[in-house]
Amino acid sequence: MTAHPSVSDLPRGFSFSTTACGLKKSGLDLALLASDVPAAAAAMFTQNRVQAAPVLVSHVHLQKSRHKIRGIIVNSGNANCCTGSDGYAAAAATTLKVARELGRLHPSQILVCSTGVIGVPLRVEKILRAVPRLVRTHRADARAFAQFTRAIMTTDTRPKWAAAKCRIGGKQVYILGCCKGAGMIHPNMATMLAFLATDAAISPAFLTRALRRAVASTFNAITVDGDTSTNDTVAILANGRSGARKITKEDAAFMQFTSALEKVCRQLALAIVADGEGAQRVIEIEVRGAPSPRAADQVARTVANSPLVKTALAGADPNWGRILAAAGHAGVAFDFERVDIRLAGILVCRRGREHPFNERVAHKKMLAKFVPVVVDLRSGRSSARIWTCDFTGDYVSINASYRT
Amino acid sequence: MTAHPSVSDLPRGFSFSTTACGLKKSGLDLALLASDVPAAAAAMFTQNRVQAAPVLVSHVHLQKSRHKIRGIIVNSGNANCCTGSDGYAAAAATTLKVARELGRLHPSQILVCSTGVIGVPLRVEKILRAVPRLVRTHRADARAFAQFTRAIMTTDTRPKWAAAKCRIGGKQVYILGCCKGAGMIHPNMATMLAFLATDAAISPAFLTRALRRAVASTFNAITVDGDTSTNDTVAILANGRSGARKITKEDAAFMQFTSALEKVCRQLALAIVADGEGAQRVIEIEVRGAPSPRAADQVARTVANSPLVKTALAGADPNWGRILAAAGHAGVAFDFERVDIRLAGILVCRRGREHPFNERVAHKKMLAKFVPVVVDLRSGRSSARIWTCDFTGDYVSINASYRT
Repeated sequence: MTAHPSVSDLPRGFSFSTTACGLKKSGLDLALLASDVPAAAAAMFTQNRVQAAPVLVSHVHLQKSRHKIRGIIVNSGNANCCTGSDGYAAAAATTLKVARELGRLHPSQILVCSTGVIGVPLRVEKILRAVPRLVRTHRADARAFAQFTRAIMTTDTRPKWAAAKCRIGGKQVYILGCCKGAGMIHPNMATMLAFLATDAAISPAFLTRALRRAVASTFNAITVDGDTSTNDTVAILANGRSGARKITKEDAAFMQFTSALEKVCRQLALAIVADGEGAQRVIEIEVRGAPSPRAADQVARTVANSPLVKTALAGADPNWGRILAAAGHAGVAFDFERVDIRLAGILVCRRGREHPFNERVAHKKMLAKFVPVVVDLRSGRSSARIWTCDFTGDYVSINASYRT
Repeated sequence: MTAHPSVSDLPRGFSFSTTACGLKKSGLDLALLASDVPAAAAAMFTQNRVQAAPVLVSHVHLQKSRHKIRGIIVNSGNANCCTGSDGYAAAAATTLKVARELGRLHPSQILVCSTGVIGVPLRVEKILRAVPRLVRTHRADARAFAQFTRAIMTTDTRPKWAAAKCRIGGKQVYILGCCKGAGMIHPNMATMLAFLATDAAISPAFLTRALRRAVASTFNAITVDGDTSTNDTVAILANGRSGARKITKEDAAFMQFTSALEKVCRQLALAIVADGEGAQRVIEIEVRGAPSPRAADQVARTVANSPLVKTALAGADPNWGRILAAAGHAGVAFDFERVDIRLAGILVCRRGREHPFNERVAHKKMLAKFVPVVVDLRSGRSSARIWTCDFTGDYVSINASYRT
């Protein structure tokens, strides 16, 4: 990921704009992504029982518009969650305003996303007042996109974006994405917003299928703190402006497109983990030799969410005993006296007991920005990979600060 | 809990001794609890798949001795876990040595517990060398018991003990207990050692039943960080030296005994949470109005283990949105727009949205040593209570420190 997107990363027919409408104390807090033409759309939403108003509104709009969307409006600074009927009205009013300003569209052609504090009424009038200038200023250039990636940030320390391209029937197809999210990141549409735009031509059904596959091994394979937010959304618009032929079945073109999409999603997901609140390093937990894929996933997630493991990793401490102990309470049956553990490439535990290693060397290797941890249960053939970050004192100070 | 146990807290027929055998860099690290006569015994062990050698040895000894135990030997400084066959041999050798020194007992009459670092070979010769003087110096007094409570400590900042008595058929019966554990505390025989001694007369079967009941609402209702250790053990010895009649059925005497035992266990469990690594305050999570007891428990545990909730509580931040969001991803179906939340006695969320409250007052109340949180789902009649502690920067620094 280079510092700034360039013109050559942009899919055709999309424009971006941003403004500061006053929801945050300062800085950009309102952003619009628009497609020139109705775009096929797919989205995945949080699986939390507590869902913010914009999640529910967007969900309904996707169905009402038959997955044909013209724009996505995003505000940061307030999640519009647990805000009752006023919250739903605010989300609906926002889409209505954007639809009108974009030119007599139906509100269901607009998706709406919010991120920020929960439970505080949204001052929607601030958004409504800003929409006309937001729509007037939208531009299809890399600078506008870069501003978009900043306007959606909350506790993020840096913008996150990724791009990929692939050829479909001789035509170049572009995929561009960005996301926000730093804490509260957890599998299953976890605590973040991600927006993807592509000029591929693809039916909504196959776009949904491609998105689901790409998300499974990327956004749903990361965790910062095991919490799942109320607003998580990954949305993609595909407007067909590349002129490539339309993907309507699971052919080679579909595979190519899905693979490029997965690449973008993986870069974005890893960027979220790397920017985890207070994080110093990205940890890859790979579980091998599990009795089933589900068991592998369960063990990997339990290890990835163990505060004891994560704090040890913050200290670059090769404390493999905590990793094994965390694996042991994942609810998966295995014989711990068969388990091998590698930390940063070093075999530290063999058959459930310490394998002689140089602690100083291990400590040094674990100070890297990316630390792979491999737990081989040697009890089957399944594997899983989860990415997380270490757990530092800064995570606590970021999250303990009194809101006001 | 007063600062020091007194003679009037001691059950008859138990003695205690401690020594520094060199497993810790300094301080007491070996302790013995012995009964004059064979005592009925019951114990509950960790449910982690990874179980330390002493857990397995004690488990076998309980069965072999038909739950008739004479003593418990405990070392701190090394968990003797993930130490392979040498570890089992070490645990077995320890019980054999104690059994011989106490006077030609069968090794199965001795239980053994270890706590400390995982995966480092146990220098058992240090223990074996110290056992004779340990056995020679055992005394039935409050001072020796106080030393016992200190010798079992690891990252604990203070010893933890509790006592209760009850009358059974006109005779006074005493129950005395102590425990260690500060991090890695989680339900299901979680990451701690607890030892209980009583001069009640009770059959092993009913002692087991009483212990199971007492533990369910106490030790199994606390969590510090969601991790479950490899060595957790709660053991009780009942030697009948009170002269009270033997409990062999579920009568009034059994109920009285169980209730006194539960009182001791609750005090110990809360003392563990209060001494949670880096903890500033004890948090009581009470879930009401859940569709089932299991659902209530699940929601309470999910809230109690949410790092976002725990860090907010460290900052005394009345961030009820995080509590509701954590409840929402517990895997329990409920309508979040019916939920009420009370923080430190203040209604902050009503029917899933903010209820006006004074943030300054709430913040001040949340700075207390004990903060009750009540989440009423208003979706049923079941409830559950879990105790945890807040999550501070100190937790991270305690756990991130490089082991050596």
